[in-house]
Amino acid sequence: MLQTPAALRLQQRARAVIPNGMYGHQSTVKLPKGYPQFFIRADGTRLWDSDGRSYIDFMAAYGPNLLGYNHPQVGAAVKAQMALGDTMTGPSPVMVDLAEALVGMISHADWAMFCKNGADATSMALVVARAHTGRRKILMARDAYHGAHLWNTPNPVGTLPEDRAHILYYDYNDPDALEVAAKQAGSDLAAIFASPYRHDTFTDQEEIDRDYACSVRRICYQHGALLVLDEVRAGFRLSRDGAWDRLGVAADLSCWGKVLANGQPISALLGADKLREAAGNVFVTGSFWFSAVPMAAAIETLRIIRESDYLKHIHEIGAIFRDGLDAQAQRHGVKLRQTGPVSMPMVLFEDDPEFKKGNRWCQVAMENGVWLSPYHNMFINAAMTRADIDEALSATDIAFRELKKQWSLL
Amino acid sequence: MLQTPAALRLQQRARAVIPNGMYGHQSTVKLPKGYPQFFIRADGTRLWDSDGRSYIDFMAAYGPNLLGYNHPQVGAAVKAQMALGDTMTGPSPVMVDLAEALVGMISHADWAMFCKNGADATSMALVVARAHTGRRKILMARDAYHGAHLWNTPNPVGTLPEDRAHILYYDYNDPDALEVAAKQAGSDLAAIFASPYRHDTFTDQEEIDRDYACSVRRICYQHGALLVLDEVRAGFRLSRDGAWDRLGVAADLSCWGKVLANGQPISALLGADKLREAAGNVFVTGSFWFSAVPMAAAIETLRIIRESDYLKHIHEIGAIFRDGLDAQAQRHGVKLRQTGPVSMPMVLFEDDPEFKKGNRWCQVAMENGVWLSPYHNMFINAAMTRADIDEALSATDIAFRELKKQWSLL
Repeated sequence: MLQTPAALRLQQRARAVIPNGMYGHQSTVKLPKGYPQFFIRADGTRLWDSDGRSYIDFMAAYGPNLLGYNHPQVGAAVKAQMALGDTMTGPSPVMVDLAEALVGMISHADWAMFCKNGADATSMALVVARAHTGRRKILMARDAYHGAHLWNTPNPVGTLPEDRAHILYYDYNDPDALEVAAKQAGSDLAAIFASPYRHDTFTDQEEIDRDYACSVRRICYQHGALLVLDEVRAGFRLSRDGAWDRLGVAADLSCWGKVLANGQPISALLGADKLREAAGNVFVTGSFWFSAVPMAAAIETLRIIRESDYLKHIHEIGAIFRDGLDAQAQRHGVKLRQTGPVSMPMVLFEDDPEFKKGNRWCQVAMENGVWLSPYHNMFINAAMTRADIDEALSATDIAFRELKKQWSLL
Repeated sequence: MLQTPAALRLQQRARAVIPNGMYGHQSTVKLPKGYPQFFIRADGTRLWDSDGRSYIDFMAAYGPNLLGYNHPQVGAAVKAQMALGDTMTGPSPVMVDLAEALVGMISHADWAMFCKNGADATSMALVVARAHTGRRKILMARDAYHGAHLWNTPNPVGTLPEDRAHILYYDYNDPDALEVAAKQAGSDLAAIFASPYRHDTFTDQEEIDRDYACSVRRICYQHGALLVLDEVRAGFRLSRDGAWDRLGVAADLSCWGKVLANGQPISALLGADKLREAAGNVFVTGSFWFSAVPMAAAIETLRIIRESDYLKHIHEIGAIFRDGLDAQAQRHGVKLRQTGPVSMPMVLFEDDPEFKKGNRWCQVAMENGVWLSPYHNMFINAAMTRADIDEALSATDIAFRELKKQWSLL
């Protein structure tokens, strides 16, 4: 698809007033050519770009859209709270309602603190862990994304070695690597950070090994260190509870964001009782952390999470999509690697180290009205219907056909 | 004022699920006893607490409320954009409109990047300055607040010496202290951070000395370092342009937040042309940084900033309030120190090292329906009328009288 002169002009205007024309995870620079950069509208499971073309959206705003864009009940909660008050000189009582709701839902949590970015929550976990233990070392899985603050950004340009002086790395799901890193930290080990499962970008996803999760917990107990689970990306797409609570492994702290209010800006740090004092001693704040509208939206989102069959639905829809892709790939004689939970699909091609096949496949799907990512896990939302999946699979079928035609060139 | 059983029960519920019952700058722990912690409604210049009592609000949500809570035109822009799309898989074209608006208004700025917290913008300035210069040292004024990330939080609990290994401190408005700090940084000086004026908490405010601003600029030129102006707190309450642009001193980077969208969550880093490349090379992002609703609200807020007489109005209103307080203080034989711009009043009492007089005065004013801060600069908003000020001054008159009665006890 060639972009229209209007879309190109808009991108040119953007380049004049925004470095590179865009930045961060929503820049289209790394995506295949022709991906639209700007969207004028979103509804249910669909996006409309600045040329008015519509797409079935498998990215869900990179996660936040859990229940469908423009969700009527969440929207009603937003409007009702907006008529009362949003960013005020103090918080609204809805903040207490929201904290109670989360503490009621997440097994390991006894208290909550709210913020805006996922990285606000992971940085709060870091300072609370260091304040509680009086220790410095933090273990993170190599290549895991825990935000883009100075100590955890995946791109160190502009940061210093000191920013991650006490961050040590282990390999996810590898008990030996974890033992080595923990030994290296020794009596200075403050916390181990982990994602619910391995959802790194550009690579196959890996389910968490239950024994591994147990050994993370055991090492934390042995060292008097804290287990921090980063649920920002995967929260509520695996479970209505904490992701490892299902496995019987309780985190000490967990970080939440993205889906919490179905797109309204809010994130959270949840913690166990023993960390109350440390959490009360650190100073963390932000201009909009106490705003009531995203909290009201979160209360309604959590109610729907508790009361609806959204979880079964996104797993069923995700499974149908995965099975459909597998069948198409087999029919076209293409080898796919589909990994991760079906509600957060990752689709990669065999023998595609530079993502040329994946890029071309996604590009054709996009030209046919389906927004897929060639290198990032995608996100199923609860507004998706069988008809959406049928329509998406029609587009991917065309994409497989086109891909096969150009196979030898890629 | 005794708080009602309902308010006390709410605070008790809060303490069960939020460490200390609240955190950050909106915690009432440091405020005089009886300050309400929770608010159910805000409109224009007034707040209603969880007991339904109303207050004329001189804190403006700690800044964001520039034009009045629940502003009809900003609210209409919010509703219109919300019907289209907010947090989507890509930004809306309104992001380009907003970047153009800011670049058009702020003399030193050639580009813009948007984020959520003020601290997101100051941390972006830090990494862009280090990326551009390849140097490490950052100069900050002692006791200045530039956010609560690891490298700049005013309370170091849970942080490490490494987090601020290359941060050096100078005294605001003191050219000798600045020279000493710059010499100490030597050829490793990346940037000097400054606030538009000295608006530290718990102390008298200090207007910027124009010669001092010029010497900051000169030292930056001499060292090949960058001047970063932190407009998060004072932006658009001093000027429709950058605060130092008025003085003929151009910043290289400036950080904005709070008022940008009259309470909708958005902050920004603005920069000069020469920093485009560095800004394009760092990785900075957040789940909600591309959301369209706060951007649409910011576009409308900026339009009103350009087209209305809000700036003249908040200065007139602020001057009337200041003059009224001075007259009352004189009548009651009390010595006040009123400092800072009239649009951001700081009111402190002479001979009050522990803020006992200020606390009692604010407490009585609060009991009489006026929310004042005993230790933080306040914020005038454009919805304030002469009648509001008259009403507020009636309350402060009672407060002075009560204060005098208990003077010898404080």
